[in-house]
Amino acid sequence: MKAVGIIVEYNPFHNGHYYHVQETRKVTGADVVIAVMSGNFLQRGEPALVSKWTRTKMALEGGVDLVIELPYAFATQKAEIFAYGAAFLLDALQVDCLCFGSESGDINAFKHTVKMVKAKKKEIDDYIQNAKKQGKSYPRLASEAYQSLQLSNNVVDLSQPNNILGYHYLEALDRLQSHINPFTIKRKKANYHDHEFADNRFASATSIRKALIANGSYLKEIQDVVPKTTYNHLQNYYQDFEMYHFWEDYFPFLKYRLLSTTAAELRQIYEIEEGLEHRLIHLISESATFHEFMTKLKTKRYTWTRLQRICVHILTNTTKEQMKAVAIHPTYIRLLGTNLIGQAYLNKIKKNISLPIVSRLASFSNEQIALDIRAANIYASCLREKQRSKMIRNEFAQPPIRYDQINSRFL
Amino acid sequence: MKAVGIIVEYNPFHNGHYYHVQETRKVTGADVVIAVMSGNFLQRGEPALVSKWTRTKMALEGGVDLVIELPYAFATQKAEIFAYGAAFLLDALQVDCLCFGSESGDINAFKHTVKMVKAKKKEIDDYIQNAKKQGKSYPRLASEAYQSLQLSNNVVDLSQPNNILGYHYLEALDRLQSHINPFTIKRKKANYHDHEFADNRFASATSIRKALIANGSYLKEIQDVVPKTTYNHLQNYYQDFEMYHFWEDYFPFLKYRLLSTTAAELRQIYEIEEGLEHRLIHLISESATFHEFMTKLKTKRYTWTRLQRICVHILTNTTKEQMKAVAIHPTYIRLLGTNLIGQAYLNKIKKNISLPIVSRLASFSNEQIALDIRAANIYASCLREKQRSKMIRNEFAQPPIRYDQINSRFL
Repeated sequence: MKAVGIIVEYNPFHNGHYYHVQETRKVTGADVVIAVMSGNFLQRGEPALVSKWTRTKMALEGGVDLVIELPYAFATQKAEIFAYGAAFLLDALQVDCLCFGSESGDINAFKHTVKMVKAKKKEIDDYIQNAKKQGKSYPRLASEAYQSLQLSNNVVDLSQPNNILGYHYLEALDRLQSHINPFTIKRKKANYHDHEFADNRFASATSIRKALIANGSYLKEIQDVVPKTTYNHLQNYYQDFEMYHFWEDYFPFLKYRLLSTTAAELRQIYEIEEGLEHRLIHLISESATFHEFMTKLKTKRYTWTRLQRICVHILTNTTKEQMKAVAIHPTYIRLLGTNLIGQAYLNKIKKNISLPIVSRLASFSNEQIALDIRAANIYASCLREKQRSKMIRNEFAQPPIRYDQINSRFL
Repeated sequence: MKAVGIIVEYNPFHNGHYYHVQETRKVTGADVVIAVMSGNFLQRGEPALVSKWTRTKMALEGGVDLVIELPYAFATQKAEIFAYGAAFLLDALQVDCLCFGSESGDINAFKHTVKMVKAKKKEIDDYIQNAKKQGKSYPRLASEAYQSLQLSNNVVDLSQPNNILGYHYLEALDRLQSHINPFTIKRKKANYHDHEFADNRFASATSIRKALIANGSYLKEIQDVVPKTTYNHLQNYYQDFEMYHFWEDYFPFLKYRLLSTTAAELRQIYEIEEGLEHRLIHLISESATFHEFMTKLKTKRYTWTRLQRICVHILTNTTKEQMKAVAIHPTYIRLLGTNLIGQAYLNKIKKNISLPIVSRLASFSNEQIALDIRAANIYASCLREKQRSKMIRNEFAQPPIRYDQINSRFL
């Protein structure tokens, strides 16, 4: 059984994701597709639109065979740590290859870039160190460094968000001395940050979320750009939980937290540095919405997503000390869902696997998964009490989602 | 100018309070009545029904001449510390006498009780120490100790809530070696904890709050038991802020706080002892309302009010360390409101006063008042954003309420 790993958020699962899963099977010739998926909070520092369980169903019905949760300690991190956590899990799951979407689409260029950056590490670090005073953000500086050092022609453009992630996947595999064989697929038309639908079948997840913010449960506008199963699951989720999850829904809690904390306490929170705690406390009381707060908070030095991640850590009360203790590597494989093929693959590798497989939250506990539990509790906090307690009961008691047939072909 | 101090919460100001102010003038012959009043959170561990500003207006229109805020560090404490903070402020304000309502109504009995308890301190402490294993609450044990030691016939019944407060006022004056002369007035019919209206003119604040919970802005039911000014202010408050403040309104924040904290962090909160942190974290996620949470939390050892105070400290994130640093004695006189008589009195004593008078929050800062500011921020958190920011702006910028005439006679 040949297995391929993919690293996803599915926020929500759309036609571009479906295309990526199909292409992944095609180019790698894999029998089983394993997705490592972020849980309640995502890499850009946002709550997931709908729960991980609903997103797991979307994934399984969209062609994925096995869905594993990327722990909070890696899911809410900058690209480098996010990529390392995900690659570590895929390596532990003994997949044969990894396949990611990128703007570049050229795997040799990625391999070459990793080699070049490794060779020129000192020069790059020096460049960034020198240019830091200009107050630019780290991703911007890194991208400039690669350009200015003219590593060579065949280097990937690291100002593109999916290229950056891809680069870090390869770097992580290198660090892990993994045998996983990397593949990349050139992304279809819709750009990562597109805010409007690019054509009538493909749209970015960002533009889909934007349509949902604007229209709530009125899903007509997105029906051409997501599989029918996603459409149905989004509809059901709204019926069950009466909302999709956006940052604004959590803003009262973030605000309450910032209004009831001291600067000294806030400085303990992960990623809060350089006096940012004072600006956070100062700006919160004059901000009516999360968007207004972020706009006031934004500076050249901090990217929007970095600030959002910081806000997630404040919201979940994740300290430097806690993160330092657990963000070393994933310590468990949390199984969110599987079909028969995924199950067969799991049975095959079970004996040789180094990490414990967690099927039910209630049956496992350690410091790293404690952050996932807390994130789940906070994620559910903005629901009405009835739905909140239902979601939390499920989180603890629910076994992984199991599909007894191979994914339905629905497009 | 003869001044009398009273210690109040006015939650809300009702006919019994009006009667107490009038009687206070009569029995003490004072020219000026000074009220030390709790701010946003009260001694029983509850948010005040309406803001301190509205309660200040009620007080000034109900016959009080000067209203001073009792800092959070004393207002949200057990009777002993609450009484000490209030007595300290009245002593600093150089009042001639203190007059409180009590079930007993006999000031000599209070004086005698303080003397007796002081003389028998060791026996009482021993009794409490020995009986502690029975898991009873401290107030209950203390009351039993006094009874079993049969201090003498002329001792106040310390199982009555207003007698306990009165006892602690006198004890505080004794500790302060204050020259303040104490008076007490026998309370009218309505008992402290009465949940129904006792007759048609007097009702406890508890029963009034209960009627407001049940009826919201429909105030008809309480119109006979509060002065017209209270009635109008309650009505205006609801128009302005669209709510009265009850614990249930803060429960989402308390819940969020408990779901996002570790036991170790929670143990830092003031008054959390003996493993209570684990019960708090365990019980919160199965509680749909504050009342349900409290009911589950309640044991023989903890009184309801003590648990409510603990919840207030969790809500405001007040740690043992912070409280230890500031709950020594009040360090400022926060002026909430005054009429011409109150102002004349202030002008008279101004030169000889040992504590700074704070008229505007924005012009003063120390560790103790920082807790009041935080409490004000948290108190406003359950309002809609427009009202919230208005309340906070007022809290910082608003000068004390000034009435240019002597209190209107309205009954």
